[in-house]
Amino acid sequence: MMLQTLTIVGVGLIGGSIGLAARRRGLAARILGVGRSAASLERARAAGAIDAGLLDLHEAARQSEVLVFCTPVDRIAAQVLDAAPRCGRGALLTDAGSTKAALVRAVEGRLPPGVAFVSSHPLAGSEKRGPEHADADLFEGRLTVVTPTARTDRAAVQRTLEFWQALGSRVKLMDPEAHDRALAMTSHLPHLVAAALAGVLPTDLHELTATGFRDTTRVAAGDPALWTAIFQQNRAAVLEALGSLQDRLIEYKMALMSGDQAAIDSLLAQGKRTRDALGS
Amino acid sequence: MMLQTLTIVGVGLIGGSIGLAARRRGLAARILGVGRSAASLERARAAGAIDAGLLDLHEAARQSEVLVFCTPVDRIAAQVLDAAPRCGRGALLTDAGSTKAALVRAVEGRLPPGVAFVSSHPLAGSEKRGPEHADADLFEGRLTVVTPTARTDRAAVQRTLEFWQALGSRVKLMDPEAHDRALAMTSHLPHLVAAALAGVLPTDLHELTATGFRDTTRVAAGDPALWTAIFQQNRAAVLEALGSLQDRLIEYKMALMSGDQAAIDSLLAQGKRTRDALGS
Repeated sequence: MMLQTLTIVGVGLIGGSIGLAARRRGLAARILGVGRSAASLERARAAGAIDAGLLDLHEAARQSEVLVFCTPVDRIAAQVLDAAPRCGRGALLTDAGSTKAALVRAVEGRLPPGVAFVSSHPLAGSEKRGPEHADADLFEGRLTVVTPTARTDRAAVQRTLEFWQALGSRVKLMDPEAHDRALAMTSHLPHLVAAALAGVLPTDLHELTATGFRDTTRVAAGDPALWTAIFQQNRAAVLEALGSLQDRLIEYKMALMSGDQAAIDSLLAQGKRTRDALGS
Repeated sequence: MMLQTLTIVGVGLIGGSIGLAARRRGLAARILGVGRSAASLERARAAGAIDAGLLDLHEAARQSEVLVFCTPVDRIAAQVLDAAPRCGRGALLTDAGSTKAALVRAVEGRLPPGVAFVSSHPLAGSEKRGPEHADADLFEGRLTVVTPTARTDRAAVQRTLEFWQALGSRVKLMDPEAHDRALAMTSHLPHLVAAALAGVLPTDLHELTATGFRDTTRVAAGDPALWTAIFQQNRAAVLEALGSLQDRLIEYKMALMSGDQAAIDSLLAQGKRTRDALGS
């Protein structure tokens, strides 16, 4: 894959990392960034993530073969629908949003002929923000889930897979709803739990935390607005995942209350088996 | 502080790190290790953590000015009471256990004259095990909580503080019960939650985890037997901490069910404030 012009809409940590990775790997002759302020675009340019910044999405859309939307999940659909009519025939629009079903539903069937939207989610990120923390290797060896539907153009799906592979990512196809149920468990629930755990820590105990507490709550430093949008978009699946954790916590509580050491050991051993299987 | 002979009982990651730190900082002319198998003692010796290993606690007790017990929390009291009558007058016994109140209660008032036990807990560790993972800098800049009671000899408390400071640690005095309540929240609850979260992850979703899940569950790789003993020793405080997390999760659930984005954002923001305050 070799593009004339790639546009990144939203040049924060993820968008900036796409820019750096695309540049290093020679994926596009020119990389444009679209943002809401000249200052943030200039930061992305200074970080080497884009060649030029534009405040006008329509202008970028007219010039680009591929646009990747790296904005908060509750804004992507509207931006895609806004950009698509300005795109040239054959343009591919994709995104890096953490939730898929609501987005895909909002966009599907509403694009002009010859313009494709194939939603995707690179499973990579950080609790940090901004193009200053962008990393050309962010996608290296990581998995990007691409979520077409039965109505998505097959050639566009193939180009989307090639796009993420060109950035160093492995790829996997999933149904949007299956993606959201899975990510509720693997990403959204851990975030909720980390934030809950950090939130109940009294201030006078801060000095008594060590690496265990810090690791377990690390993701809670993420931007609340971004995560509120993710939870809102994926409410049903997050509630289901939360319910399964709550049930498990009740099992721990019962085992502790009855002093059932074998039950506690068995619960902890199950957690360890899974954690060991995931690797470091 | 300069000792002739320091004995480390239980030369795993913590005990081994004490040995390496004591050696590097010239804290003792000779460092003995006591363990249950010649093979594990030899691993500690090969790692440079001890000068010699002994299978006989009594023999080590007779030779040592300071003994530090780094064994599972449910074994420390019995070992201290076993070693103390063999110690010379002026000997100091301390430990690195994660729970304090039950241990202190079990030992207090049962030592021979001239032998002191001052319980302590270095807030440092790892989900890894064994002297191969020992680290001479493990205590550097970290906090060790020392938990004397009104009956503990003041000079022995002072020596205990000096011992941990000599290993590079900062120190803090706390009442044993206050320690256990605090650590239930800062260490035992995060472990429980991490293990619960790992435990409810279906196998087919392993490939869809990223750094967020892995950070949040990292401590769940710890040894279940060690943690079962910790939970058993600190049941009441762990149950109280668990209750506060369960209450918070219900707040999240209610906010999600009602689609109350402001409430979700506020809960996440509270978690972020705390996590940001803890630093990386």
